Amino acid sequence: MTSSASPTGPGTVRPGGRTARTRAAVRAATLAELAERGFAGLTVENVAARSGVHKTTVYRRWGGAEGLVADALELAATEPWPIPDTGSARGDLRALAQLVRTGFADPEQGPVATAFIAAALQNADAARSLAAFFTSRHEQSAVIVARAVERGEIPAGTDAAEVVRAAVAPVYYRLFVSGEPVDEAAADRAADAALAAARAGVYLTP
Amino acid sequence: MTSSASPTGPGTVRPGGRTARTRAAVRAATLAELAERGFAGLTVENVAARSGVHKTTVYRRWGGAEGLVADALELAATEPWPIPDTGSARGDLRALAQLVRTGFADPEQGPVATAFIAAALQNADAARSLAAFFTSRHEQSAVIVARAVERGEIPAGTDAAEVVRAAVAPVYYRLFVSGEPVDEAAADRAADAALAAARAGVYLTP
Repeated sequence: MTSSASPTGPGTVRPGGRTARTRAAVRAATLAELAERGFAGLTVENVAARSGVHKTTVYRRWGGAEGLVADALELAATEPWPIPDTGSARGDLRALAQLVRTGFADPEQGPVATAFIAAALQNADAARSLAAFFTSRHEQSAVIVARAVERGEIPAGTDAAEVVRAAVAPVYYRLFVSGEPVDEAAADRAADAALAAARAGVYLTP
Repeated sequence: MTSSASPTGPGTVRPGGRTARTRAAVRAATLAELAERGFAGLTVENVAARSGVHKTTVYRRWGGAEGLVADALELAATEPWPIPDTGSARGDLRALAQLVRTGFADPEQGPVATAFIAAALQNADAARSLAAFFTSRHEQSAVIVARAVERGEIPAGTDAAEVVRAAVAPVYYRLFVSGEPVDEAAADRAADAALAAARAGVYLTP
């Protein structure tokens, strides 16, 4: 996923050189600004001031707030997720749901992740970047389902992404839709429900 | 849930009179503006112009965009949801998930509902109103689970709100988090999964 500001993505010209350093500085500043002000408060001016990169450079390469968010998400999508491997489907899915819960509760990660979701609701570029990010997350998590099938805990032919979506969806629902607290038990229940449904054959591919 | 602009809620003074008409006009204009411009484009000026209510009146009674959204949500929470009664837990939960799916796909309702969720992500007042709205939705839907328990389809002691959350959460997850399409089959699977988990005892209250 590349930003709309540049078809090859900002900063791909000289990896490790000045461009890569500029991109890293702008990304770090974008994340810090999102954590402090959210997407609605993200401006090229503030990112430029915080990163020490000239405003006109930020405008030229990233285009605006949307391009900055898209680029930060592109990086986030390439970062490996610490996929749990606890030895059981129940343990793995619970750990996955807890990873989402604790991530949003984290004082640094939480506001940035929330800003990504808010940005996607307001901007089509950010929405495309966020969708690519979640495609990557679903793909990375599929191994949990593959291992569960090997162990005979889940029927062969189960749609892995559907199990992953089900295990985390109620956590996101409470956080961003119904606005309810998500405690450890609620996240565990979401994971247990996904497993029960998978065992019952709900996610078998037709 | 009352707007922060007035502790008694805007327009409760003379029900059926001038105030009620003003409130109805402002609400209708708020919904129309949300449908056209989203929360980010909602202004007192535009709502005043569209409703024919003077700008200073809108400012005084509703305070601003947040108060307008909170009041519109307060009304939405009191509107009865057409709770399905198909004769089976599977049919009822599937109909519930489809109600959410088709609501967001609707060219009139969809943008307004999306604007409510975006508003809640940006503003604490809107977030409180949206949470109250969903509390009302969960309470209204609980009868589906009560009927399922009576029919012996779901164990007694099942947490009704948890079943409802599970039946709709994957629909919201695709719409507002992962940004994936939600077809009829995806909504049915969400409902079927909630039922399978309920049958397996995942949502039994401790």
